[in-house]
This record gives sequence, structure tokens and C-alpha cells, in this order.
Amino acid sequence: MPLVVRNTPRTDLDVVDGLAHAGVATVHEAQGRTGLLRCDIRPIFRPARVAGNALTCEVAPGDNWSIHVAVEQAQPGDLLVVTPTSPCQDGYVGDLLAASLRAHGVRGLVIDAGVRDVGALTEMGFPVWSKAISAQGTVKETPGNVQIPIVCAGVYVKPGDVVVADDDGVVVVEREQAATVLKAAQDREASEASRRPRLTAGELGLDIYNMRGRLADAGVRYVDHADSP
Amino acid sequence: MPLVVRNTPRTDLDVVDGLAHAGVATVHEAQGRTGLLRCDIRPIFRPARVAGNALTCEVAPGDNWSIHVAVEQAQPGDLLVVTPTSPCQDGYVGDLLAASLRAHGVRGLVIDAGVRDVGALTEMGFPVWSKAISAQGTVKETPGNVQIPIVCAGVYVKPGDVVVADDDGVVVVEREQAATVLKAAQDREASEASRRPRLTAGELGLDIYNMRGRLADAGVRYVDHADSP
Amino acid sequence: MPLVVRNTPRTDLDVVDGLAHAGVATVHEAQGRTGLLRCDIRPIFRPARVAGNALTCEVAPGDNWSIHVAVEQAQPGDLLVVTPTSPCQDGYVGDLLAASLRAHGVRGLVIDAGVRDVGALTEMGFPVWSKAISAQGTVKETPGNVQIPIVCAGVYVKPGDVVVADDDGVVVVEREQAATVLKAAQDREASEASRRPRLTAGELGLDIYNMRGRLADAGVRYVDHADSP
Amino acid sequence: MPLVVRNTPRTDLDVVDGLAHAGVATVHEAQGRTGLLRCDIRPIFRPARVAGNALTCEVAPGDNWSIHVAVEQAQPGDLLVVTPTSPCQDGYVGDLLAASLRAHGVRGLVIDAGVRDVGALTEMGFPVWSKAISAQGTVKETPGNVQIPIVCAGVYVKPGDVVVADDDGVVVVEREQAATVLKAAQDREASEASRRPRLTAGELGLDIYNMRGRLADAGVRYVDHADSP
Amino acid sequence: MPLVVRNTPRTDLDVVDGLAHAGVATVHEAQGRTGLLRCDIRPIFRPARVAGNALTCEVAPGDNWSIHVAVEQAQPGDLLVVTPTSPCQDGYVGDLLAASLRAHGVRGLVIDAGVRDVGALTEMGFPVWSKAISAQGTVKETPGNVQIPIVCAGVYVKPGDVVVADDDGVVVVEREQAATVLKAAQDREASEASRRPRLTAGELGLDIYNMRGRLADAGVRYVDHADSP
Amino acid sequence: MPLVVRNTPRTDLDVVDGLAHAGVATVHEAQGRTGLLRCDIRPIFRPARVAGNALTCEVAPGDNWSIHVAVEQAQPGDLLVVTPTSPCQDGYVGDLLAASLRAHGVRGLVIDAGVRDVGALTEMGFPVWSKAISAQGTVKETPGNVQIPIVCAGVYVKPGDVVVADDDGVVVVEREQAATVLKAAQDREASEASRRPRLTAGELGLDIYNMRGRLADAGVRYVDHADSP
Repeated sequence: MPLVVRNTPRTDLDVVDGLAHAGVATVHEAQGRTGLLRCDIRPIFRPARVAGNALTCEVAPGDNWSIHVAVEQAQPGDLLVVTPTSPCQDGYVGDLLAASLRAHGVRGLVIDAGVRDVGALTEMGFPVWSKAISAQGTVKETPGNVQIPIVCAGVYVKPGDVVVADDDGVVVVEREQAATVLKAAQDREASEASRRPRLTAGELGLDIYNMRGRLADAGVRYVDHADSP
Repeated sequence: MPLVVRNTPRTDLDVVDGLAHAGVATVHEAQGRTGLLRCDIRPIFRPARVAGNALTCEVAPGDNWSIHVAVEQAQPGDLLVVTPTSPCQDGYVGDLLAASLRAHGVRGLVIDAGVRDVGALTEMGFPVWSKAISAQGTVKETPGNVQIPIVCAGVYVKPGDVVVADDDGVVVVEREQAATVLKAAQDREASEASRRPRLTAGELGLDIYNMRGRLADAGVRYVDHADSP
Repeated sequence: MPLVVRNTPRTDLDVVDGLAHAGVATVHEAQGRTGLLRCDIRPIFRPARVAGNALTCEVAPGDNWSIHVAVEQAQPGDLLVVTPTSPCQDGYVGDLLAASLRAHGVRGLVIDAGVRDVGALTEMGFPVWSKAISAQGTVKETPGNVQIPIVCAGVYVKPGDVVVADDDGVVVVEREQAATVLKAAQDREASEASRRPRLTAGELGLDIYNMRGRLADAGVRYVDHADSP
Repeated sequence: MPLVVRNTPRTDLDVVDGLAHAGVATVHEAQGRTGLLRCDIRPIFRPARVAGNALTCEVAPGDNWSIHVAVEQAQPGDLLVVTPTSPCQDGYVGDLLAASLRAHGVRGLVIDAGVRDVGALTEMGFPVWSKAISAQGTVKETPGNVQIPIVCAGVYVKPGDVVVADDDGVVVVEREQAATVLKAAQDREASEASRRPRLTAGELGLDIYNMRGRLADAGVRYVDHADSP
Repeated sequence: MPLVVRNTPRTDLDVVDGLAHAGVATVHEAQGRTGLLRCDIRPIFRPARVAGNALTCEVAPGDNWSIHVAVEQAQPGDLLVVTPTSPCQDGYVGDLLAASLRAHGVRGLVIDAGVRDVGALTEMGFPVWSKAISAQGTVKETPGNVQIPIVCAGVYVKPGDVVVADDDGVVVVEREQAATVLKAAQDREASEASRRPRLTAGELGLDIYNMRGRLADAGVRYVDHADSP
Repeated sequence: MPLVVRNTPRTDLDVVDGLAHAGVATVHEAQGRTGLLRCDIRPIFRPARVAGNALTCEVAPGDNWSIHVAVEQAQPGDLLVVTPTSPCQDGYVGDLLAASLRAHGVRGLVIDAGVRDVGALTEMGFPVWSKAISAQGTVKETPGNVQIPIVCAGVYVKPGDVVVADDDGVVVVEREQAATVLKAAQDREASEASRRPRLTAGELGLDIYNMRGRLADAGVRYVDHADSP
């Protein structure tokens, strides 16, 4: 039977906001290259960057009833994550539902399906990452689950996990690991910042990362064009 | 044998323009969620919004000959709708053909295939909804049909039906139903306008739409996280 | 064994720049409609237009090691062309590697795989044409080949061939043909420029191109709607 | 509102059976290369060949309620044609529903969605052409239309049109044209039968079809490998 | 760091075998229509039916090293479930590795990637469900995780969960629910068996399931063709 | 202008037949994991295994004229390789053309497009590897090139290169390397044959290939389930 779980724990918003600042690629690296959603989940406008606590919702194909249920469970700083029980491209969310979500503090939407009214959503500045843009309407006949663990676009997401989304896509950080991952992401940012001027100045990655020996060990052979086969 | 039908009836441009104003999602709802083209037909630039009388054209794969034939049949307020007889991504229309279409009053293009010169088309502000962007050129060897009923991206379109296209995609309204659908669309716009402030103020869809009883009937169960399985 | 070929010949940059000016669709036509990459290779931002000498790189799936090797082989005016040995969407290049490429005179990137940090790449104005945008990181374990002939997105590319890329996609011109193709492209531009005002003025392609006789020969039949079947 | 149309006209079964005998490719040619469904509609087992009168059914995504409604409208010699109102891969039909369809004289199923129990359907010898095989179950909440004109996999189908399906795919023949198309198909079969022994004996299509002159006119040039560029 | 977990609990093989007998569609229904893998995971030969305890393995793209690690952790009655960390179609497993898996009691393979040597695997009768068939070889450079929870083709799978696979696809049953689901599946089989003769005899689902009232409530309207719009 | 090159060199049929015996996966490995066509090129029936000298043909979309031209250039032991100049799924070859090809000694067909009459082709035992099965007919208006180097499904193929195809897909071996690759393939077959009984007897790849040390170096950690996080 469809279940709605109330009062699930959230991640501290300071941590959430720190992860947003680091961005998807850095966070993905910082947690060992895990948690990345399928790359066909794309933003409806760019640039866009947001992070929030996962407010999870599982819906039937072509049926957005439970998204209305989810709104009531929202808390400021949440980000709605929606997955259909079978593949669907219908437009589950439009500008009215987005206005409702925003009124309850929801920062954006990640959905392995479609959205509509993207012109209005762009004007509102309500960020959405979706598999499709489709005006196809949905019914309200089969309720789904709200705030239970789901798989969205290939990643297991639990309520209160941190969802980070930007122009590169979407990554999920487990609530229990969020502070640790934030620290690692900040370290990585610092490390990248130190290398950027060297690379910009023309220094080679081959030298910065000491790759020449390993390349030779791996059998890489340099030949001159004039001598090549 | 290839056929070109002259003097097909059009829909009154006041109705056409009213449908453009309502937009794709609203029109699609207003006519009972029918007539929506496959959602991989996307605009080449955004924002874009247009409606016009369908000027239909069926082409061979990789052959745009009949689009030249179609230009002659155009009337101001038309929107060219092109479908290939088998799936094709070639660039059937470029900036020269767009200039020719515009000179004859054609407002835009919907094509279940590719277009090219999209940089120039964007500068011209000539709106196109297509399956692909491709520089691949086409030949002029096999004529097709012009102004006959076609299936484009999954929807049956007759000459003079209204084609509405915006950032959400493309929807087709039968000529005979266009005035009725416009009225229904305007009613829907009014209804949505009345609900928007309530949702923006935080009122729940659950309450506005009286969903709680039906959800309980459908077996939805609320549990506290502390008590969840 | 992995091979790196040094000192491969380049095409003269005057020719390269001339081809950039002509653009992808014109160049593709000028060389007999050949050399066009698959149309799912799309720019990460628009508008974008560039041409360069192909700096080729073949990589293992999920492994960007050889791109670091390729940077050392770059010369000003090059454009990096990367193909994986099996289909992959991972983010092979990010903003650090792009900074390194730019420092060595590389004008942009064409890759039959993914890129990341597209927000930063857009701010840098570093143009990329790719199959995917993905934050997925890559390893450095299996070196590939640099500056050998490769197949990228369906086209055979040799080091020093000219790669032209714009909003329409990517086309490759063989080094040996580049000057000839440039001349043909310029002729085509002139020819199109002469037809543009006629088409804009409403003259029909049917007349400009003398199509009416051939259409009749091909059996095209005109009927009035009132008389149509 | 959902509509069920009773007592729609059928095509004579002698004509239907004649079209089945001719097969999809021949029928498609005989009617001027029209009426072919998208080629991702594939048989669940091979060999399979059947033709029937279209019994049309339009369903909501993930909802097979109207297929039960359609069974009651079936007549011996019908072939069920199902299209969802938005793209869906769920398993709308399994072995129980197939048993019910067969009991009412339905010869097979064409569906732009999924089916399940394909092991049992194969044992029963109940032929199905579908876009997907999926065990995903469907609900019975939103009724659709039965025996109205639909678009299925890109083709407009009316109740009582002839649907021909074999290992090559599915083609639709309009009821009003069916006898004429059958005659043309039989002529084509005879013509092909007369050419088969000549081709099998090694005679060239170039000579049988007198192509050499037209090829020369089209500029085809023969060179010896030793002299090729 | 890559992890290999030893001695994970399994589901009793009597339960596993009972679920295999019920088949994918029935098991999927019996557990509330959950646990079904994406339907592009298809068997390499048909008919095929197997169930086993999930032996999970997460691999890098183009790298099958950890599958060798997984073999050592196998127990009789296991079924290997492999997921790549980013989308990949390479042929991770061939006939030698299959022989090794079989020698350790592994009953089959489910992989969200490719396999090769499918001719030999078919002769061996070693069942595989995969996204692709590809001869592309893999390297052994980047180890992954073995016997940890993974997401495979959209479903969360833990070591020792039951994986049921047949011609319809693949479904996963949580170890803790397996006995309960088996009971529900057997009940469903009995229920279907009781309805089959009625449907085969021509009784309508409309009557067996008492649908006529609900259809009328939903607004379904019957019209005669002669009276239809 | 379209070109037909006569009298291109072939590879010795003893070498060709040896490569067929080795099979696609082994040949692909033996030449350093190169030359494999995209894995969506699939056989129309299984089992199938063949090798031949590439008889190359480049065709316009929806136009099979040049395949008739190619037949005349065929020699016994050839295998026809067809690529369209832009993506196309039409049925370029049917049973009549297959009969003609066979009459001229052509052993089979590899095509990055569609075929039709697959029921008849299966009965004839004429092996085909294609991207699609489609009854869609083609025209004869735009000639292409015959026996020139082409890119087919991602691989560069020259006339007289060896094309090996079996249930796993298709691989191309350069004519100049064919004898060397055959030798390497036979060595690999012998090496695999020696390992097969050890793996079948239950010996672990971890031990046969001495992987344990490298795995430890790579940081793989073994934990007992009872102690796992």
C-alpha cells in the first residue's frame, strides 16, 4: 500500500549549501565517484545550481497524484526527487505545482520523467533537471510513495540525502556522509585551485602529475611522423 | 503519384492567434489531452511561441524537393509541417529556404527530421521545431505530397489544422474543433489564474482539490519516520 | 602498443580560418556532402564557431590519460578530436584540462563522449562539441594513441585535417583537399548570396531553379481541394 | 469522454488472407510504399505471419483497462491494434488476455508498447508485434477509446483497415483500398517470381533493369584500382 | 577503496527455486509491482528461466577485473549481477569466465552492459540477461566492489536477494521478503489458473471482473458506427 | 562524382576462412582490440558465422541503386559492406537482391541500415548483419560509390579488408595485417584452450592469472559480512 513517511531527518543546510557551492563534478569526485544520476537528466535552463534535502516521491506512469501529497511533507531547503515506477516522459509538473512547491520552501526538482510550462518555470527561476520536456498531462488515480528510499535515474536516494545539481547534472550524497564529503570537496577545490595557474601558464599535466615514467612502463612509444608506419 | 492540393481551407487567424496565446500545455489539456507531437521535436531556440495553419508536406528521406513545391501553396499565417516517409535526420531546411518561406507568410516550421543553418535561423528569429540539427544536405529527385493529411511525430495532421508550438513542444488542433478548443483553453487559463495565488500563498493542492478522502480510499497510509519499517 | 606521432603536418591556418568563416553546412556541401560527424555531437554552448587542425586522440572507455599526452603535441591552431575505443559518455575533459589545452594554443574540443564543468567552460568561452555532458570522472590506467588516424562519430580523421565546427555540428576536411574545398565553399557562399535577395523578395525556388518541368516529368499532379479524393 | 464504437465495418476475410499471403514488404510496395509502422515494432517470435481487421484501442500509459473493453467488440478475423496516449513500455497484455482475445477470434496483437508472458504466448502461438517486452503490470483506472481511428507507431489506422504483419514488421492497408492493393500485390509477386530465376542464374540487375545508361547520365565513373586516386 | 564482503547471507534455495517456477511477471505482481529491471536487459537466448542468490559486482567501464574477484565469493545457487559505474556496452564476460562461474555453482548472469561469445554461451546453456552483445574486450586495471548493495538497471540489489529471470526480463526480491513473496506468487498462480478456463471459453473479463459499472461511472459511452461522429 | 573501382585486391581466401573459424571476439583481441563495428549491428538469424573480402558500397539515404552496381564488381568470397551517407533504417536489400549477390559469390551482407524479406533470407541461409529490419523500400535515383574506403558503423573499411561476422557482431581486419592477425588469433585460441579445462575444474582466475598481489596493491580490502559497515 502507498506510504507517506513524515518527519524524516534532514541534512544541516549549512552542509547542503557548502555542497552546492562545490558543484556536482567536485562532489562526485570527493565521494569516490559515486552517486551520479544518468546524464540524460538535464537542466531545463542554464546556468542553474542548487542543492537540497531529498524529498522523495515515487509515482505511477502518467500519474502525478503523489506529488501533491509530497508538497505537504516539504520543509524549507528540500529538493523534490521524483521517479516513475516505469519509464515515462509525461509532464508531471508545471508552473502551478512549481509555485506550490516553492511556497513550501522547495528549491527545485529532479525528475526521471518530463516537465511542462518550461517557459514559465524559466521565468520563475525554478530549476528543474528532467529526462524530457513534454506538455503531456497526467492523471490522479494511482497514489505512490512519499519519503521512502527510491532509485532515481540509476541512483539510490533516501529522504534527507543531499541532492546537488548544476549544469553538469545531478549527484546524491548520503546524509550520513554529507559533512565528510563536504570537507573532501573543499580540499579538492583547494587542490584544483593550486594547479589551475600552473596549467594556465602552460605547464604540462605530464610533468605536474609525474606521468612520464608510468607511460613508458605502459609501453607508450613516441615516433616522428616521418618515421611512422 | 505525388499530389499537390491547392486551396485547402484554413482556420481563421483570430482563432489561430488565440491558441498561440494559450500555449501548448493549455491547448493540449483543453482538447482532452490529444494532439501532442512526440516530445523529441524540440525548438532550435528558446523562448519561441507561434501558431499557424498547417501547410503539410511529405518528403522522401534525404530529399527536400517538395518543400520548394510547398512554398508556392503557402498563405500568410501558415506553419510548415514536414514529415519524411521513413526516419531521417538530414537538414531539410536552411536559411535560404526559411527566407523563402517567410517571404510567403509562413510563420515557422515543424519537422520530424533535421534542419541546418540554425545560427542564421536564430538570428532571423525564424522558429523551428525539429528532431535533429544536422548540416547534412538533401537531394531533389523524389517528389512527395503537399497539402494532404499526414502523420507527423505521431499525430495525424490535415492541411488547415492549427499547429501550436512553444518551449513545451507542439500540439495540433483540428480545424473543425479550433474555435471550441480556444474557448475551453481560455476557460482553463482563467481557472488556473484563480488557483495560482492560492498555491503561491501556500495553500495545499490536497485541500484545494479535496484529495484527502480519495487518497484514504486508495489506501494511502501516513507513518512517522520513527515508526516506519 | 600505444603510439604518439610527433610533428605531423598541419593545414595552413589561413585556409583553416577561411573554412571557419564559411561554416559547417557550406563546407559540407562544398566537398560533395562528405565528412559530417554524427549529428548527436552538439556544442555545449551556442553560438560557437571554430576551425582547427585535428589533434587526434584515441582513449579507452572511462580513461583520459592520453589527453594529457596529447596536450604536449599541440600546436597553436589545433583542435582536439577525441574518440573512445568503445562507446562512453564519461566526462573526459573539465575546466583544468581545457585551461591546459588553451595554454598550448588548442582552439576547442570535439569528442564522441562526455565533458564536464560545462558552466566553467562556457564562462571561459572554450568551445566543445560532445555526445554528452557528464560529471563522471575518468581514470589514468590505459594509454591510447595520439596523432594517428581515427574514426570519430562516423568520420575518418587524420592529424592535420581541418575540423570545422559551429551551431550545426562538425565537419572534417582532408588536409590535401582543404584549399580546394575552401575555394568551392567561397564560390558557394557567393552563389547563395546572389539567390538570397530573390528568395527574400518572394521569388519561388520552383522558378529560380527551373523545377516545374522536372516535377511534371516525375508525375506530380496538382488538384484543387474541392476536387481532391 | 471515452468512446466505444460498435459494429464498425470490416474488410472481407478473403482479401485479408490474400494480403497475409503476399506479406508485408510486397503489400507495402503494392500500395506505393505507404502504411508501414515504425520498424522498432518487432515480433516476439519468428517466423510469424498474420493479417486481420484492425480492432483499434487507445490506452492511457500503464493502464490496460480498455483492452478488456475491446475484447467484447472483437469479431473473428480481427487483429488488435493498441496505442498508448503517451510513450510507454509496460506489459499491457499477458497470456490470460491473449487467451481471451483468441477465444473471440482475434488473430494477434500489434502494440506500440510492451507485452509480457512471452514464453507462454510463444507456446500458444499467439503472434504479437510490440515495441518492448516487459513484465511491468498495468492498472485499470483510466478508460480509453475503442474502435476509433488512431495513430499507431506512426501510421493512421481506422477500425476495419487491414493490418498485415510478418517477420519484416507491420503494414496497414485502408479498407477501401484493400481489394485494389491485393491485386497489385499479386501482380508484384508474379513480376518478382519471373525475375528471381534470372537473378539466381547470375544475370545482373544492371542489365535486367537497363540501368547502365541512367548511371552514366548520373555521372558514375568506372576506374581501375591501379589508376584510382 | 574497493571492498569485497565475504560470507553474506543467502536466501534458502527452496524459496529461490519456487520463485523461479512462478516466473518474473507473477513474482513482480506478487510483491506489489516492484523490483523489475529496465526492460532493455534481455536474455541472449530463449527460452531461459532461472533464479539465484544475487552475487553482486560493481565494475569500472571497460574493466572486468572484479568479476574474477567475484568468482571466489560464489556459492552454489548464486546468480551474478554486474553493474558498471558508468554506462558501458563492452563484453565483460565470455565463455571462459562463464565456465569458471559455472564451476563455482553460479547459475547465470545479469549484467547492465555487454557479453560476448554468445554462440558458445548458448551451446553451454549458460543463461545471460544483458543490455548488449559485444565482442569488445575489457581491461583489468581498476578493481570495483563485490558483494555490496548496488543499483543494477534501475533496481537496488543486495547480496543474497533473489534474482528471478526469464523470457520477460529480470525481477529482484528482497531476501527478507522472499518467503512471503513466494506465498503470494503461488496464490496468484492459483488464481490465474482458475480464471484461465473461463477466459479460454470466451467469458469476458468485463464480466469476470465486474467492470461494467465502473466503466459507466468513468463515462465510457457506447455508440453504433452508423451513429458515430 | 560517384566512383566505381574495379579490380581491387583481395585477401587470400585461406586467410579469410581461417579468420572466420577463429570468430569475432578472438580476432578482435588478436589485433589489439580494434576494428569492431558498433554493437547495434546484429545478425538477422543465429547462429551465423562468415568471413569475406569487403566489397564496399556507399549509398544515399533511402536509395539502393549502387548495390546493383556493386553486384557486378563481386568476386567469390566477397562480403558486401554497405554504409549510408546519413543515418537510415530503410530496407536496402531483400531476397531478390540477396539471390543476385549469392549468384555472384557474395557470402553475406553487413549494412549500417535496414534489410527486408528476413523470413526468406533466413530460409535461404543468406547471413545479414544490420542495424534494422524494415520493409521500407528504396529508390534508384542517386548513385553512390563502390569499392572505395568507407566508414561502416564506426570502422574504416577498405575494399579487400577481411570482414568477420558471427553471433557476437562484426570485426574488420586490414588486408595487409590479415595473415599476421590470423596467426595471433590461432595462438590465442590455443592459449584459451589450455586454460579452459583449468577454469572448468574450478581453478580461480585470481590464481591462474596471479592477480592477488596486484589487487592488494590496488587497495582491495576483504571484510566479513559480520564486520562490514
